[in-house]
Amino acid sequence: SRRAVSTLPPTIRHILAQQPSEASLQAHGWVKSVRKQKRVAFAEVSDGSSVKGLQFTYACRLNVGASVSLTGKLVQSLGKGQALEMRAEDVRLLGACDPEAYPLQKQAHTAEYLREHLHLRSRTNTMSAMLRLRDRLGRSFHDYFQSQDFYNVNTPIFTSSDCEGAGEAFRVTSSIPTSSQGGTPSRTTSELEFFGRPAFLTVSSQLHLEALSSSLARVYTLSPAFRAERGVTHRHLSEFWMLEAELSFCENMEDVMGVVEGLIKHSLNDVRKTCEAELELLGATADADSGSDTAQERRMSPLELCETLGGSSASSSSSAWQRMTYTQAVKELAAHDAASKGASQFQFRPRWGAPLQSEHEKWLAGSLVGGPVFVTDYPIDLKPFYMRLNNNEDAGNNADDTGTVACFDLLIPRVGELVGGSLREERLAHLEHAMKKHGLPVEEYEWYLDLRRFGSVPHGGFGLGFERLVSWVAGIDNIRECIPFPRWPGKMAL
Amino acid sequence: SRRAVSTLPPTIRHILAQQPSEASLQAHGWVKSVRKQKRVAFAEVSDGSSVKGLQFTYACRLNVGASVSLTGKLVQSLGKGQALEMRAEDVRLLGACDPEAYPLQKQAHTAEYLREHLHLRSRTNTMSAMLRLRDRLGRSFHDYFQSQDFYNVNTPIFTSSDCEGAGEAFRVTSSIPTSSQGGTPSRTTSELEFFGRPAFLTVSSQLHLEALSSSLARVYTLSPAFRAERGVTHRHLSEFWMLEAELSFCENMEDVMGVVEGLIKHSLNDVRKTCEAELELLGATADADSGSDTAQERRMSPLELCETLGGSSASSSSSAWQRMTYTQAVKELAAHDAASKGASQFQFRPRWGAPLQSEHEKWLAGSLVGGPVFVTDYPIDLKPFYMRLNNNEDAGNNADDTGTVACFDLLIPRVGELVGGSLREERLAHLEHAMKKHGLPVEEYEWYLDLRRFGSVPHGGFGLGFERLVSWVAGIDNIRECIPFPRWPGKMAL
Repeated sequence: SRRAVSTLPPTIRHILAQQPSEASLQAHGWVKSVRKQKRVAFAEVSDGSSVKGLQFTYACRLNVGASVSLTGKLVQSLGKGQALEMRAEDVRLLGACDPEAYPLQKQAHTAEYLREHLHLRSRTNTMSAMLRLRDRLGRSFHDYFQSQDFYNVNTPIFTSSDCEGAGEAFRVTSSIPTSSQGGTPSRTTSELEFFGRPAFLTVSSQLHLEALSSSLARVYTLSPAFRAERGVTHRHLSEFWMLEAELSFCENMEDVMGVVEGLIKHSLNDVRKTCEAELELLGATADADSGSDTAQERRMSPLELCETLGGSSASSSSSAWQRMTYTQAVKELAAHDAASKGASQFQFRPRWGAPLQSEHEKWLAGSLVGGPVFVTDYPIDLKPFYMRLNNNEDAGNNADDTGTVACFDLLIPRVGELVGGSLREERLAHLEHAMKKHGLPVEEYEWYLDLRRFGSVPHGGFGLGFERLVSWVAGIDNIRECIPFPRWPGKMAL
Repeated sequence: SRRAVSTLPPTIRHILAQQPSEASLQAHGWVKSVRKQKRVAFAEVSDGSSVKGLQFTYACRLNVGASVSLTGKLVQSLGKGQALEMRAEDVRLLGACDPEAYPLQKQAHTAEYLREHLHLRSRTNTMSAMLRLRDRLGRSFHDYFQSQDFYNVNTPIFTSSDCEGAGEAFRVTSSIPTSSQGGTPSRTTSELEFFGRPAFLTVSSQLHLEALSSSLARVYTLSPAFRAERGVTHRHLSEFWMLEAELSFCENMEDVMGVVEGLIKHSLNDVRKTCEAELELLGATADADSGSDTAQERRMSPLELCETLGGSSASSSSSAWQRMTYTQAVKELAAHDAASKGASQFQFRPRWGAPLQSEHEKWLAGSLVGGPVFVTDYPIDLKPFYMRLNNNEDAGNNADDTGTVACFDLLIPRVGELVGGSLREERLAHLEHAMKKHGLPVEEYEWYLDLRRFGSVPHGGFGLGFERLVSWVAGIDNIRECIPFPRWPGKMAL
């Protein structure tokens, strides 16, 4: 048996999968609802293991939010709404809950209210469903990468450089005596450097992953990453979880996109099979909010999304997701803008050489393609130094075309960019040139250049924002509801 | 097939599991060794997927460290040391490697030297075996917790309090303009607070996990944790990975220890089955260094350790690991010390009320028990505020006995403490009393107290240092070789 040593009792999810029986059972949980009738009272108890709670009949006084230990028999329910219920022979109150003081009331609370009560937020049906879905998506990452012979590695949180440019990385010092009364701290920050040099929190594990993919060939990590950007949008967090992977001996960007597409299809298919009740519940919640979607961007329900785009169903899902170059994407955006006769569709005019804005990304995936789309081969000036330079003849024929790099963004409806990836520049001279062009202190990257000096290999990789995937799959628009304890500028509760 | 979308080629691990065949194969990797004979040259190529590389014959000039792409047939090897080899028809050099400049030479390097070359360290056999073992241990955590109905959740890295006391937590600010020339920074740290309040890096996820276990009942996280301690030992890192779990509806510490024991036995049994070659290689390496072990503490080889202590073999492993109270442990330590007639065995005299020192922990597990041992019920003054107070009659009869708490440390040979856990104080009044006694600002923990106000449940949990487990299983004494990119005071390479 897999329950070798531990002897934990079954959860409600397991109890509800059983048959009615004369055997005496124990169940534990928090009271979700109570309904009193003349002779008997019904209550539902949940332990967070499933969307459905366990209904039980009892005679004592109970309030919503209280925790109980039940002993009784599992019987067929005569009532509507559930097949099974517990005939409780003993109801032991573990922890009371004063209904006047309890912050979670029967009516639905706003997302803002719940964010002010983070420590209780996971007791709501929507949040606990999100957490179970998130758990399962994470597991499916590990399963998929294992099937593709990748190794899970841990990259550092503390780094000595801020990789993607100054100003966006958090800085770390050892504790300063908390003189929160104000006044100047007695020691300056530089005196407190713990590592003998400035320490930052990682914004991306890529460079460190590349070091490991230069020996283990295929590696990935699911790690926290940090951005000190002050802009506040519902697509950004100061602390988020990122899935990053690097694969060696890969000369074709299609191989990298194939891993991305395989990963996401596998994950969608996996949650479709294991989290159907969660997807249905989240769909019912999202429906209530979806008035803001345009007619063009009809929103798929979470279940429909997983069925349509998941990996191994017999339907159209087995066809490859669409690819288009950045150059093609800009043409499509410009044509759409021009067709609108006067009133521009976009706040930012689409122009070759300019970044795709979030509004552009959402239109491409949501309206033009109506599903995920890989946009490839962006102009070199829009992307970081490590991306592999395309042959010039591959580049667009635009007048201001300074060349493109072998990269891609995976865009999805409603969210925009979900994944960014590229082939990495494996040629020493090209890489040195790109670093100088970006004004990077080459001497700090000698170790990274060493990877090109000693047995360099063609390789590529990508990063996927975990909360954005949860947001897309669950139909939860604000990314702050896609992580248990969100942090954003000015806000760090608990 | 599980390889639905991605079309990555097989790794060397997969190739070596095949039968000889007339089919043409491709293999990629880094040259590990070359051996020239009169008419033909042999080389071994590795892609990091297995202990054994792929031997191939070729005619061109190759150096160790170079990366190659091979095309050829898999044939039975006539030489000793391997069953299969590749008859290469084409050897394409991907990345050259100048043997004069390459920092990894044929002779073994010291751990110190390799730590100075972190970006290449994973190319050594020992480090790549450690990384594959670490990957597998992490997977086995997820498998075990899934089998026990735990949910994987992500707790925050940024926290507003330093949980276990001042001085040991890292502090975070947004980036300061790097005026590394010295001089006073133009702004003080407090002005740069990004979240509007001081931000620290988590030293433990426990309190946040408790919030989630108050709704999902059983949760765990495998996350980075941080300690700004300045002491430098081979058992501590400034940044490490910790497995933490909390389970609700648990009134008995044996239930928590059962999960810990089940988890570790499952993991040892899993790596025994999947990483046998890695365990053998690591054992051969550790043997060379094990001169420092005392005769009493004969070191088990990694394979022997997993076979003896792993979960589901038919041997003695199925018996429960030993438990003893702190009070018993102190008696044993004092008796051993007294028996040594004059010259004390320990630097620190064992005394009820004093912490167990690392030397004590190692003696208890390594010499007295000769294996893992749970030491339970420590004096209240040695442990943090959140541990559940034992009934007084349970406590020792020592004169200075101020009571004990329902906690445990799992001690293992060579390493000392691997896991720490406890029942958590679920009674509001007891918890408030303990917080005041510890001088904690109760108003900052109102959210934590809320968990006891609204449906409080008896519960417990534990934390396991991932690198210490790797150190123990792999027989690698220094924890800096148990994580890809170690950080310790004064040292943050890459």
